[in-house]
Amino acid sequence: MKLIIGNKNYSSWSMRGWLAAKQSGLHFEEITVPILGEHWEKTKQQMGDMAPSHGKVPILWDDETVIWDSLAILEYLADKVGRDRFWPKDDAPRGMARAMVAEMHSSYASLRTEMPMNVRRRVELKEVSDQTRADIVRILQLWAEARARHGSAGPFLFGTYGAADIFFAPVVSRFITYGIGVPGFAQSYMEAMWEHAWTQEWISAAEDEQWVIEQYESVGAQ
Amino acid sequence: MKLIIGNKNYSSWSMRGWLAAKQSGLHFEEITVPILGEHWEKTKQQMGDMAPSHGKVPILWDDETVIWDSLAILEYLADKVGRDRFWPKDDAPRGMARAMVAEMHSSYASLRTEMPMNVRRRVELKEVSDQTRADIVRILQLWAEARARHGSAGPFLFGTYGAADIFFAPVVSRFITYGIGVPGFAQSYMEAMWEHAWTQEWISAAEDEQWVIEQYESVGAQ
Repeated sequence: MKLIIGNKNYSSWSMRGWLAAKQSGLHFEEITVPILGEHWEKTKQQMGDMAPSHGKVPILWDDETVIWDSLAILEYLADKVGRDRFWPKDDAPRGMARAMVAEMHSSYASLRTEMPMNVRRRVELKEVSDQTRADIVRILQLWAEARARHGSAGPFLFGTYGAADIFFAPVVSRFITYGIGVPGFAQSYMEAMWEHAWTQEWISAAEDEQWVIEQYESVGAQ
Repeated sequence: MKLIIGNKNYSSWSMRGWLAAKQSGLHFEEITVPILGEHWEKTKQQMGDMAPSHGKVPILWDDETVIWDSLAILEYLADKVGRDRFWPKDDAPRGMARAMVAEMHSSYASLRTEMPMNVRRRVELKEVSDQTRADIVRILQLWAEARARHGSAGPFLFGTYGAADIFFAPVVSRFITYGIGVPGFAQSYMEAMWEHAWTQEWISAAEDEQWVIEQYESVGAQ
């Protein structure tokens, strides 16, 4: 399998696809392409057929199968390795996890626009719009409910690490980058997420990402 | 199971949840609530706990399990009755169907805003924005690819009726309402969708929907 992702520092959807690939336990080759400005324009042209979603990442290639959306990638991988690796076994937590992931997939436009993912940076936000504040409150409510009702088996949203954590991982990064004050339970959850080996691996790569652009440019120049 | 949906004439996400419930083959009780203006405000207040997604439909209740997003509802039902009822069996078409459904779930904001679902009406659009035109072109490309590569077993996107058709059903209704000119293959697909028994059942209910508001008001007055 090949997973095409954007810059680790910025591409929140890539992070979800990459964490899903990690969670699958399957071997995958990782292809990172720069998604910034003219670099991304050039990349799209070069990728051609490789970018069926008119130039969006992540994209998973599995032989002849191509999947160009992070949630679809997660589900496709769950099809391959078994649902239980991604989703809670029992109906009630699984129903809630599925709804939370789907909501994350389609919502929070304000949060995403106002607080773009930037793994490396720490920014003091001067002002937060009412809509973004509502997004944050909503997310904290969902986290609180998942942790309280279904989180007893471990530090993650539904106890053990799974699809919901994968989908909210970039939100954890945003809350840290922009110094969003959160209640204690959320602080503990965010710490567990931040210390997770895959998050740490992603952060390290994001911190030393200049190579993406350099490598891309050397390829482009051949 | 109980499925809470909005007005059939307007609520495209409800249509998806309802079609998913139909496709599951399971028995479900249908609760239609008006989503218009002050009616919806009153409904939200009355629903309280029943509207965990701060007042969005559809919502599926299955004993203690509540799922408040159309895609999550579909996946939850697929968990119950078996994936093959919703998704293609083979990897390549299933990967593509999953990506198309996920893209429909998160995209086409312009199409949705400019061409709101209105099952009953026929409108001549004077102008279509570039962004909505791009959405339409993108959807037609996806339909064309699905039909050409994986549609040989029947008239639907991946041959037999499934998740992708359920998710694009409201788009079919929009294309009809706003008289969008489409190529022959898309015309045939839309006809198959429109003639489908469940679409017809939905349309009939949408055409005689005044009762929703009346019933709601009589309940509210008790």
